[in-house]
Amino acid sequence: MTIRTGRHFLQIPGPTNVPDRVMRAIDMPVIDHRGPEFAALGKEVLAALKSIFKTEKPVIIFPASGTGAWEAALVNTLSPGDKVLMFETGQFAAQWSSLAERHRLDIELVPGDWRHGVEPTVVEERLRADANHEIKAVCAVHNETSTGVVTRIKAVRDAIDAAGHPALFMVDTISSLGSIDYRHDEWKVDVSVGGSQKGLMLPPGLSFNAISDKALAASGRNTMLLSYWRWDDMLKTNESGFFPYTPATNLLYGLKESITMLHEEGLENVFARHARHGEATRRAVRAWGLEVLAANPEEFSGALTAVLMPDGHDADAFRKLVLERFDMSLGTGLGKVAGKVFRIGHLGHFNDLTLAGTLSGVEMGLRLTGLHNARGGVDAALDYLAEAQVG
Amino acid sequence: MTIRTGRHFLQIPGPTNVPDRVMRAIDMPVIDHRGPEFAALGKEVLAALKSIFKTEKPVIIFPASGTGAWEAALVNTLSPGDKVLMFETGQFAAQWSSLAERHRLDIELVPGDWRHGVEPTVVEERLRADANHEIKAVCAVHNETSTGVVTRIKAVRDAIDAAGHPALFMVDTISSLGSIDYRHDEWKVDVSVGGSQKGLMLPPGLSFNAISDKALAASGRNTMLLSYWRWDDMLKTNESGFFPYTPATNLLYGLKESITMLHEEGLENVFARHARHGEATRRAVRAWGLEVLAANPEEFSGALTAVLMPDGHDADAFRKLVLERFDMSLGTGLGKVAGKVFRIGHLGHFNDLTLAGTLSGVEMGLRLTGLHNARGGVDAALDYLAEAQVG
Amino acid sequence: MTIRTGRHFLQIPGPTNVPDRVMRAIDMPVIDHRGPEFAALGKEVLAALKSIFKTEKPVIIFPASGTGAWEAALVNTLSPGDKVLMFETGQFAAQWSSLAERHRLDIELVPGDWRHGVEPTVVEERLRADANHEIKAVCAVHNETSTGVVTRIKAVRDAIDAAGHPALFMVDTISSLGSIDYRHDEWKVDVSVGGSQKGLMLPPGLSFNAISDKALAASGRNTMLLSYWRWDDMLKTNESGFFPYTPATNLLYGLKESITMLHEEGLENVFARHARHGEATRRAVRAWGLEVLAANPEEFSGALTAVLMPDGHDADAFRKLVLERFDMSLGTGLGKVAGKVFRIGHLGHFNDLTLAGTLSGVEMGLRLTGLHNARGGVDAALDYLAEAQVG
Amino acid sequence: MTIRTGRHFLQIPGPTNVPDRVMRAIDMPVIDHRGPEFAALGKEVLAALKSIFKTEKPVIIFPASGTGAWEAALVNTLSPGDKVLMFETGQFAAQWSSLAERHRLDIELVPGDWRHGVEPTVVEERLRADANHEIKAVCAVHNETSTGVVTRIKAVRDAIDAAGHPALFMVDTISSLGSIDYRHDEWKVDVSVGGSQKGLMLPPGLSFNAISDKALAASGRNTMLLSYWRWDDMLKTNESGFFPYTPATNLLYGLKESITMLHEEGLENVFARHARHGEATRRAVRAWGLEVLAANPEEFSGALTAVLMPDGHDADAFRKLVLERFDMSLGTGLGKVAGKVFRIGHLGHFNDLTLAGTLSGVEMGLRLTGLHNARGGVDAALDYLAEAQVG
Repeated sequence: MTIRTGRHFLQIPGPTNVPDRVMRAIDMPVIDHRGPEFAALGKEVLAALKSIFKTEKPVIIFPASGTGAWEAALVNTLSPGDKVLMFETGQFAAQWSSLAERHRLDIELVPGDWRHGVEPTVVEERLRADANHEIKAVCAVHNETSTGVVTRIKAVRDAIDAAGHPALFMVDTISSLGSIDYRHDEWKVDVSVGGSQKGLMLPPGLSFNAISDKALAASGRNTMLLSYWRWDDMLKTNESGFFPYTPATNLLYGLKESITMLHEEGLENVFARHARHGEATRRAVRAWGLEVLAANPEEFSGALTAVLMPDGHDADAFRKLVLERFDMSLGTGLGKVAGKVFRIGHLGHFNDLTLAGTLSGVEMGLRLTGLHNARGGVDAALDYLAEAQVG
Repeated sequence: MTIRTGRHFLQIPGPTNVPDRVMRAIDMPVIDHRGPEFAALGKEVLAALKSIFKTEKPVIIFPASGTGAWEAALVNTLSPGDKVLMFETGQFAAQWSSLAERHRLDIELVPGDWRHGVEPTVVEERLRADANHEIKAVCAVHNETSTGVVTRIKAVRDAIDAAGHPALFMVDTISSLGSIDYRHDEWKVDVSVGGSQKGLMLPPGLSFNAISDKALAASGRNTMLLSYWRWDDMLKTNESGFFPYTPATNLLYGLKESITMLHEEGLENVFARHARHGEATRRAVRAWGLEVLAANPEEFSGALTAVLMPDGHDADAFRKLVLERFDMSLGTGLGKVAGKVFRIGHLGHFNDLTLAGTLSGVEMGLRLTGLHNARGGVDAALDYLAEAQVG
Repeated sequence: MTIRTGRHFLQIPGPTNVPDRVMRAIDMPVIDHRGPEFAALGKEVLAALKSIFKTEKPVIIFPASGTGAWEAALVNTLSPGDKVLMFETGQFAAQWSSLAERHRLDIELVPGDWRHGVEPTVVEERLRADANHEIKAVCAVHNETSTGVVTRIKAVRDAIDAAGHPALFMVDTISSLGSIDYRHDEWKVDVSVGGSQKGLMLPPGLSFNAISDKALAASGRNTMLLSYWRWDDMLKTNESGFFPYTPATNLLYGLKESITMLHEEGLENVFARHARHGEATRRAVRAWGLEVLAANPEEFSGALTAVLMPDGHDADAFRKLVLERFDMSLGTGLGKVAGKVFRIGHLGHFNDLTLAGTLSGVEMGLRLTGLHNARGGVDAALDYLAEAQVG
Repeated sequence: MTIRTGRHFLQIPGPTNVPDRVMRAIDMPVIDHRGPEFAALGKEVLAALKSIFKTEKPVIIFPASGTGAWEAALVNTLSPGDKVLMFETGQFAAQWSSLAERHRLDIELVPGDWRHGVEPTVVEERLRADANHEIKAVCAVHNETSTGVVTRIKAVRDAIDAAGHPALFMVDTISSLGSIDYRHDEWKVDVSVGGSQKGLMLPPGLSFNAISDKALAASGRNTMLLSYWRWDDMLKTNESGFFPYTPATNLLYGLKESITMLHEEGLENVFARHARHGEATRRAVRAWGLEVLAANPEEFSGALTAVLMPDGHDADAFRKLVLERFDMSLGTGLGKVAGKVFRIGHLGHFNDLTLAGTLSGVEMGLRLTGLHNARGGVDAALDYLAEAQVG
């Protein structure tokens, strides 16, 4: 029996819960995308978005999913046959490399156990070995949504620098942007790939490329066939606040509001909140006697926690039970960890009590699925959350 | 520091959380309240509302708060100087009696300790003593919102019948309607008073009078001066789906949707859900070492739970802390119990995980306010809720 | 065949078209009406509303229709048997007098032809004759919604002053507030009665009493039985931003937004716009060879225009045709002029092109109903509107 | 001075006015795009969309603008160097050909005067001359949004068949779908390109490819590098109601509602309505003494009308004046006709009175811009619209 009353708990690691303020901003009449009112809006959101990426360079907004922004990052800067260093840190990293292969890039995919992020020493080592600078780009996923493991982007940047290698550095920030500290300029990222439906608290439908001067220069030399994803048309048209083709007008209204909300809370407070919720969740997981997929404390995620189900328990059967009994959506295990992990999203528009409700649903669900000793997790989380309040 | 991110927890015992479906139904253009589209809507909601009161008689819809419907019940049926038997079961019962006095009704207010509902034996005894039938009406509050105590309306009805007394029977169902089983016709209630903003899951702004033939007959004989609250104008105009003055059009759109939702869930399931949440809450309260205000298990409320703070702790300081730290609104103690109790609303559009979040906020708040042993309440609630799922 | 595509034209003289901004403001979660966020909102709207009435005295907000605010004006200030001077300027003036009679006020109703407002000389004459000051109140409707005739309130005030009479002066501003210049303080009105669903561009559900010190003093002496409508409870509770019973929370969100919008446009610009639309409409009516109900140019209304159908043509059949063929709601003839007039609302959230669409629907409808010479009305309106733009 | 009150008139030929029902459908919480509720939604809209294209074959939904669907049509079916026959019927046809060239297709662009659609005899002639079948695709724009000229797709189909040529036939239906009769299957179109923001009455953000078996077969043989636009991944995932990457969830809610609305009105009635509004608009244009850009009555558009400004008058200055004085957005002249034409959109959620308001704004604007004889246009339109009602 599915109980459906009260609000659904959408605790997948994105799309996330959209604030009422953002939904109402979206729910306004469409305006002329070639008129003066739109131009003012366009300029405003294009400027405001920079503060979220912590960049002073242009950010491109595509009316497309994050997958489109992945594609745009590659096809604007690289040419068929270019060597690219990628890391199999999880399902999305793997999908990005598959996408790259479809564009005939020569992918060197460093294998991984899905429990660790990109290892900076491996980056340095591999780049040092590339004396001829055949590697044109290094790609990493900041927060791997399939595993809840964070790659230390600054450390990877330092590794690239230590190797003195000129490769472009591209980072997927789709599920970290607006949730986990990210610094496009300071970390000298060349292309940052973002999306609307995670920390930015919007419905899906927008995705982003923050770009460096170096990436821009590369885009002038590449030989890919592209049109929709072209940066040059965008940048030129964006100058006046417009877009080269019809933008997703109403999501831009929402973007303006969501950026306002992030700044009202304060980006550093937003990051601290996510970190706190990540820690509370991990304490709950340990109390239940379960294991967090992420193995390295330095790589724990504030955006989501992937949890390993004990042998003999199917994670998807558990998720189905939680959905039916408690009207909560949890993230499924993807790829290599399908059936073995479930994911708890704790990012975006979220607070302590909603986290407590979320963990309560997991705890009850675990018991109903036969893990009778799954107790004390909510208690452990509450202890931590209450303590965090005292401080 | 007030943390405001994620959804506010509105856990006062009304107004309650309005479902998105209902809010979006309300958020539609106003229509001509004298046109055919409105007539169809008017007929539909007037008919549908009967099913919620479990009556086949007319229900009056006022564009007004519940206080207006209280006034309407009295001024349509009684005349200045009429004797009315009322019971001080809590703040709202007391306010209704004050309102009655302002209309120069002769109120006999049976005192109470605010921990019990109306005692049927007292009703019977008092009415038997009224050999001349000077008492024209008996008024009771079904679910006393200030205390979380339920008066057993059927037992009161039986007491009136046992006494063979012809007094009108009026019941305030404001915070029970759509949450706790209520039967206007079967229990021979003459006027039931309801409101939009509790179990009906609407914003405040509508209130109701369900009326019996006997009440209607009384309304023809009374000598009160009234206009806005007149039933006769309403009933006549309602026949064609219209209202004698401008109705609150958009709330009627919402009312149609909320009644649809109640029936989708099934009224009996709705009542069972509220009862389950009441029991879970009481188990939490006991685990915290606190006391529920309601003293009689037969009178426990599924709509809200009033909790006594231990001596030396101010309930309002606690509520303030919970609001500031956890962005949750709890109900204040009113009248006699001001500062001594806080109230947890668990009625309306609500589910297990939101209750868990709510109780988590209370539990953490209690500890932060110095009640360091306030532990295990959420656990106790989860045990009960999980068990209820098994069955 | 009813065509229903595109937006319905709601051109009754209220409820009026609600701006998207206002609807979205309303479409936000209900908050605790006893919490600090509500207190701030309450204080803000109570203060802002004064600017609309042009008063520095308190304005009362009832969760009720305008009829309730009519009742409140009378029952707070007068006692049964008090003599009140009223004027039958139209249906709403007549209804207000009926309501007053139900409260056993002694109404002297000056008859009228429904084509003129209150005649100031009659007021002066009648008051001069009342040497003993038996008349306790003079009541007038500023903009009579049933006729489109405006009573010159300042002139009536001057007449009262000329007669040196101490009667209270009460004015219904329901369909003039926010549309036609109105000055509660300057014109020494004692009670102004307003509603949300006309010039304030909100859905129905709120109504207002702006009150003078003199009215307030009278409210301390009156002997009416009242509760819901009591000013004293309201004024006391309003001081802290709260209300004595549950307010219509979400409409207050909307009220805040609509007042903001009125000030953004500028009240004097709002009045000028209404006046211009009234004139454009009257020019159309004359071009069609029809007659405006309002007989005196000094009393023409900027809020609505009532139009006389020629003999042999039923105004309601015409309205039905317009609704079915053009999806436009026009106002029906009420009371004495039922079947004889239709009313075109041009108040509230409205502009030149919507007026042109409105008049086009009337012009086509007139022809379809057999008035084949009804031509040139839209042209005449456009000539005027275009010319007004040049200036 | 910009007057902003009442509703903005968005009369560009898309994005169009979104119905409140559709906006409210969109304004609902985001759901898990991998859960059962989404699967049901996905299946439903994927099936329903077929009825709009009049096809029994799959329709692909991209979270992207129409430009993306243009690109998808080409990159799924053609390979670099393939010859494609295109026709310069206006700005969008020209842009599509530019996009094709960016993908290194060998474009033969038949020049045009922007006042006519694709000439079927030219198609036949050109294809007959292509004895070796080097031409792999013929591309046409059904309703050219920049000119208001309709290409007779059936006649072009017949021409291809008469030539016995195997080229793929691709049609841009972006501004005709849901406004002008279109039959993907019956006319044997291989790829139809559509978008959400025109006749489908949605905000921008979705675009479509309806595909034939022949197009699908071609997609298996092509050598383009593509990922986001791949049909094969889509088709496979769509089978279960899901999408290969995050879909624009909330726009899909809206799509479901808008298709429902189109069927409620009846597609044939929708087409007739657009045709009627096109004719009314052209009559107005002629009465003003202006010229419609479309030269051939068989190619007039029901979706929009492009109007030539007389020599010496700048169309954009006129549009600016109309926006500032009457708060109406008209479409700008694009490319070759920039400054020379303005475009009146009359497609989507629209009705007679809104058209009358629109034409009134144009008529007043023309006069204010110095075309003093621009009179009688609205009259001519009303005559026609009223007459159409009689029939």
